[in-house]
Amino acid sequence: MSFRRPRTANRDLQFPLYPVIMAGGSGTRFWPLSRHLFPKQLLRIGGEQTLIQQTMQRVSGCAKPAHVFISTNAAQAELIKGQLADWKDDLKDNFVLEPEGRNTAPAIALAAIEILARDPEALMLVVPADHVVTGQRDFESAVKLASELAADGYLVTFGIEPVRPETGYGYIKPNNKVMLGKQGRLRGYRVRKFVEKPNAAKAAQYLKAGNYFWNSGMFVWRAATILEEIRRYQPAVAKTMDRIATLKSAGASRQAIDDAYRAVPSVSIDNGVMEQSSKSAVVPVSFKWSDVGSWGSLDEVAAKSKAGNVMTGRVVDIGSADSIVYADRRVVATIGLRDMVVVDTPDATLVCPKSRAQDVKKIVDILKQQQAPEHLEHLTVHRPWGSYTVLEEGPGFKVKRVTVNPGGRLSLQLHHKRSEHWVVIAGTARVTRGEEVFDLQIGQSTAIPVETTHRLENPGLDTLHIIEVQNGPYLGEDDIVRFKDEYGRVTKH
Amino acid sequence: MSFRRPRTANRDLQFPLYPVIMAGGSGTRFWPLSRHLFPKQLLRIGGEQTLIQQTMQRVSGCAKPAHVFISTNAAQAELIKGQLADWKDDLKDNFVLEPEGRNTAPAIALAAIEILARDPEALMLVVPADHVVTGQRDFESAVKLASELAADGYLVTFGIEPVRPETGYGYIKPNNKVMLGKQGRLRGYRVRKFVEKPNAAKAAQYLKAGNYFWNSGMFVWRAATILEEIRRYQPAVAKTMDRIATLKSAGASRQAIDDAYRAVPSVSIDNGVMEQSSKSAVVPVSFKWSDVGSWGSLDEVAAKSKAGNVMTGRVVDIGSADSIVYADRRVVATIGLRDMVVVDTPDATLVCPKSRAQDVKKIVDILKQQQAPEHLEHLTVHRPWGSYTVLEEGPGFKVKRVTVNPGGRLSLQLHHKRSEHWVVIAGTARVTRGEEVFDLQIGQSTAIPVETTHRLENPGLDTLHIIEVQNGPYLGEDDIVRFKDEYGRVTKH
Repeated sequence: MSFRRPRTANRDLQFPLYPVIMAGGSGTRFWPLSRHLFPKQLLRIGGEQTLIQQTMQRVSGCAKPAHVFISTNAAQAELIKGQLADWKDDLKDNFVLEPEGRNTAPAIALAAIEILARDPEALMLVVPADHVVTGQRDFESAVKLASELAADGYLVTFGIEPVRPETGYGYIKPNNKVMLGKQGRLRGYRVRKFVEKPNAAKAAQYLKAGNYFWNSGMFVWRAATILEEIRRYQPAVAKTMDRIATLKSAGASRQAIDDAYRAVPSVSIDNGVMEQSSKSAVVPVSFKWSDVGSWGSLDEVAAKSKAGNVMTGRVVDIGSADSIVYADRRVVATIGLRDMVVVDTPDATLVCPKSRAQDVKKIVDILKQQQAPEHLEHLTVHRPWGSYTVLEEGPGFKVKRVTVNPGGRLSLQLHHKRSEHWVVIAGTARVTRGEEVFDLQIGQSTAIPVETTHRLENPGLDTLHIIEVQNGPYLGEDDIVRFKDEYGRVTKH
Repeated sequence: MSFRRPRTANRDLQFPLYPVIMAGGSGTRFWPLSRHLFPKQLLRIGGEQTLIQQTMQRVSGCAKPAHVFISTNAAQAELIKGQLADWKDDLKDNFVLEPEGRNTAPAIALAAIEILARDPEALMLVVPADHVVTGQRDFESAVKLASELAADGYLVTFGIEPVRPETGYGYIKPNNKVMLGKQGRLRGYRVRKFVEKPNAAKAAQYLKAGNYFWNSGMFVWRAATILEEIRRYQPAVAKTMDRIATLKSAGASRQAIDDAYRAVPSVSIDNGVMEQSSKSAVVPVSFKWSDVGSWGSLDEVAAKSKAGNVMTGRVVDIGSADSIVYADRRVVATIGLRDMVVVDTPDATLVCPKSRAQDVKKIVDILKQQQAPEHLEHLTVHRPWGSYTVLEEGPGFKVKRVTVNPGGRLSLQLHHKRSEHWVVIAGTARVTRGEEVFDLQIGQSTAIPVETTHRLENPGLDTLHIIEVQNGPYLGEDDIVRFKDEYGRVTKH
């Protein structure tokens, strides 16, 4: 299945446009569907594709896919590569990895340096990976106008017309006296002022006044311009980038470069640069936008029933209204709910009124304090070779379904404390066990004793599924010695 | 663990008292915790013991355990025997099984005939298996007074003082002018009238008027008296009983007797006899009683937090009040709930306001129409030899955890369509496979090919747990040919 769209006129912009998808966020606000290691951009929200797939497709309407950069961190890169496999060749050299999150300014600086090295005239289109935009043509028109202003040296934001007195976003007021450009009905202006997240009274005032726009966190600028402005207003960030450049040209280790990055101050591009720069501009846009910031905001992007419900999966409902109910494999029965959110996942269930959906973050904090695994990852854990799902665990045993992609290969490994049994339920397994190598078909099985080197791989063209039964006094994932690994995860001896 | 209490004075009643625990109900109102094949009396509600265990213990305070009869149906008998294993010897000849439910009058008639055969002077104490009673001494006092009236030929009900304008129960008004007996503060009266479930206005009027009592569905009478009154007011029921007696004395088959029973009219003892008989009496009681008729009524019997919540299992809550949250193995996160019910089980989740908890029955009806397994039984299915739990199923495979009680033995069987792999995760398995018999310990496994006779048994003193992986094009429970079975389930050829 391919998500590619036909090329559009915008692709032939007179300026070389490099989209940067900001995909470094960690997922707490859509818990339990999102997890720390499985954030919102990886979820299917408001469409058949995940948010990052939607974003990739959206920016591919404005630029060559091979110009798209992904700004993320090592922990998420493999999952994102998996979701963007259709653009594998385009993106192969375009992942800009932060060793750890330092807010948007340093991440944007890193990406700008990479892009500037490709093309001194490059324009950047910076977009978050986890927003929903409706109206591709309007999006492309806005990008086109913004690109023209950016080519003239402006730092351009997209302003969204408010539809409610939102206190969760910053606002932008254009200076309508200084129009910088226009295209069709779109206009670009200098920014009169940026306003930080307002209180409820102020937000209501802005909504009533008109001519205040939400700051969408999407930007267009020349790579050279944003780096100049970062140097001017955030010299500490620029200094770190200089140090990293010096280290790189001296052939320093990954570790040394990562350590240098960790010293950079954590600062947002809005606070740190846009609000201070005299070059800030805004294009009020006509496309529909949502940052789907919580379960409550799913309303804005999902199709609703007559009763105002958004229900997914095996839901049996009697008379609910204006509610969001997400069922996975289990049946979820709801009766007479009003403005509620119910999210049912294999290991965790959430129930709250929509008005309290922001507090899901607090639940995640509590689970984190409890060191409960449910804040961190799903029962299904993704790996470079495929995934595994814990079906059950108890004293002395664990049962997993292990899924291996065609051509996927687990490391050659052994366990000190556990034996394993593998039963093939779909596909073909190639098993290395000690000195032997043999294939197993559906319904065949093998036993791996303690302290025996072994490897599982999928030599076939179909996905391999096995059931693994582990026995032993200790069944932690860290009881593993890796001898060979396709993905660079060999255990140090 | 034993639930036995010390014998009490009441045990030495001057009348031979035979308690009958009515345990034929099917469970829909506590779905998803109760199921059609796992009804409410089998649940732990309002105590460490299940409701039927609580009931058994309660009546054992008034009568010899060997005098207790259980009225139920074949489908539930094994589960009930399992829960009442502490009284195994006492109860072994005391199960009165209906082939199918026909409301209370025929079931009571069946039990009365059995009891009368043991003792022509027998008194019966009829109690539902799934009510909660608080105040054992007060219960025993009420039984004592009721027994005296019953010995005088009355059909005695226990009247519960209303605490709310309940429309779900019938009401009893005593004739205070005709006091039949007393003991301490307790009084027994003739009944002035029975009132069917009233509307809200009437219920409020009864509550205000006082001297109206809830009909608790608990009765004391002589076995001979109730049979006379059934014959008088429900001659069709009596006729069926006569026919069954004739068939039995002629040595008829179980099938013939069951068929005769199926012809009996479905009628309740309240409507059919109590409301018509001139012998009805009532003892207004002082013990606390609840029929825990729905999730909403759990409040009456469970310990509540300061905020009025009843929360069980891994619940992470922020600021909920007056709500019932039941978590099983998964984490359930709740925020700001008011008067809500949330019940999370391995295969089904329920969310509704307390005020709508009665409508859970409608959910069960919908699932029944959909032929969804979740209305019928749990993922864990109980069998005479132990239980099994489906961990996962998908195209061509099913994974189960199978639990075999010490000494338990599955049938000698074969499957036409599936192979099986067994891995022992606790205990010792004795495996028959074709002509071989061998034992497997923890971490050992075996494969059972298609069309191979096999048997699993637990020769040890500890519970055996195995993981069973099934492979095949058809995995229904009905692909089984049984050759030998401890529990009479041999397949007919």
